[in-house]
Amino acid sequence: MGQPRVGDVYGAVLADALDGKPAKEIVERDDGFVMAFDARYLLAPFKKWDDANERRAMRLVRGRVLDIGCGGGRVCLHLQDRGLEVVGIDSSPGAVALCRLRGVRDARVLAVDVVDASLGLFDTIVMLGQNFGMFGSRARARRLLDRFARVTTSRGRIVAETFDPHALDDPVQRKYCEGNRRRGRMPGQLRVRVRYRDLATPWLDWLQVAPDELGELLDGTGWWLARTLGDGPSYVAIIEKVET
Amino acid sequence: MGQPRVGDVYGAVLADALDGKPAKEIVERDDGFVMAFDARYLLAPFKKWDDANERRAMRLVRGRVLDIGCGGGRVCLHLQDRGLEVVGIDSSPGAVALCRLRGVRDARVLAVDVVDASLGLFDTIVMLGQNFGMFGSRARARRLLDRFARVTTSRGRIVAETFDPHALDDPVQRKYCEGNRRRGRMPGQLRVRVRYRDLATPWLDWLQVAPDELGELLDGTGWWLARTLGDGPSYVAIIEKVET
Repeated sequence: MGQPRVGDVYGAVLADALDGKPAKEIVERDDGFVMAFDARYLLAPFKKWDDANERRAMRLVRGRVLDIGCGGGRVCLHLQDRGLEVVGIDSSPGAVALCRLRGVRDARVLAVDVVDASLGLFDTIVMLGQNFGMFGSRARARRLLDRFARVTTSRGRIVAETFDPHALDDPVQRKYCEGNRRRGRMPGQLRVRVRYRDLATPWLDWLQVAPDELGELLDGTGWWLARTLGDGPSYVAIIEKVET
Repeated sequence: MGQPRVGDVYGAVLADALDGKPAKEIVERDDGFVMAFDARYLLAPFKKWDDANERRAMRLVRGRVLDIGCGGGRVCLHLQDRGLEVVGIDSSPGAVALCRLRGVRDARVLAVDVVDASLGLFDTIVMLGQNFGMFGSRARARRLLDRFARVTTSRGRIVAETFDPHALDDPVQRKYCEGNRRRGRMPGQLRVRVRYRDLATPWLDWLQVAPDELGELLDGTGWWLARTLGDGPSYVAIIEKVET
């Protein structure tokens, strides 16, 4: 069977959503499991965010902000409205173009792996919309946390949303987590790609963690889990710098 | 990469939709193109059908009715409410169980290929929700039309919804139709499977035709295209028996 071509999935899905089309991003996991998500939420104004944890999390954002995986710009636009200085980054050129079009003052095409001090220092790093997933794996998370430490002030804070992979009473999910464990991966280390129409992202690791797993992951990184917002499977982690 | 397992996709997606979950069926084409559709419409009461052609088409349904691919039972329930006698068939055991649960009086697990006179005679055959697609290919359509002729009265009518594959100004779509033509397939003969969570249908041919292609397809079958409803890419074909 034919394969999708690797391309700017988020650029395409956001452009269609902005156009009023019923655009749905499709997440395909390496065990054949698929999920679809309406892309409209990527453009929603703050008042329409239906995830209460996300809305609460916004109160904990302060100072100069880096929004990682800024997508349609919904987080940047809200924080700008509140008078904060925000830099949005996304690896999708289409998403960044659309952010600028919608009024995001500083949006850049940049992968999270290459964030460095040339962007200046930040007080808060935001990874909403499940963007904690970009931490990818234990090793990658540690590399990124080290990088984030170098681009944040001493009161640096990470506001990141994730999903407890053990919270679902679902045999397919359980089997997947167990398979990961057997192979030395984190249980919620999902091998996925995102598809839209004829496009796909490359296959990548998308990390989901329970709060206790996150606590362990942060051990020795110079960051700690200060609190969590939400008690469902999906929650926002407030991660802060260890005082030295 | 792992493959989904072949199973009762519609049973699973309908059960979740009935449960209020944001269930989306995902259609994957053999060129890697994917689409997602919200499954709630499969359960929608008549007043909530957002496809005006479907609502208009209901006025042309008369007598004893066979609803092919009855899914969540929305067509059966509407016609029952109107006092018509309806038999719903679907190859999904889960869909049929759910139809019965929702009050469809006569729902059966049956593939369209084996419809025969044991069901009695029908005045109208309904294939809404794009179910014209089940005609599959030129050869299969002719076989099914022959079968339908034998299970319908002399005033037999088919009310079937399809989609004009040439109506989209879209390079991916054009390329797909041209590829089909080169291989002697009908342009809108889509090779697809439907996926939900870890499940998939087998790969199958799903036929879409423009009105002129449909007219040709019916030539010599004993059926003719009496009229069409709708002038968008999606339309309902009213197909009637040629008077003899």
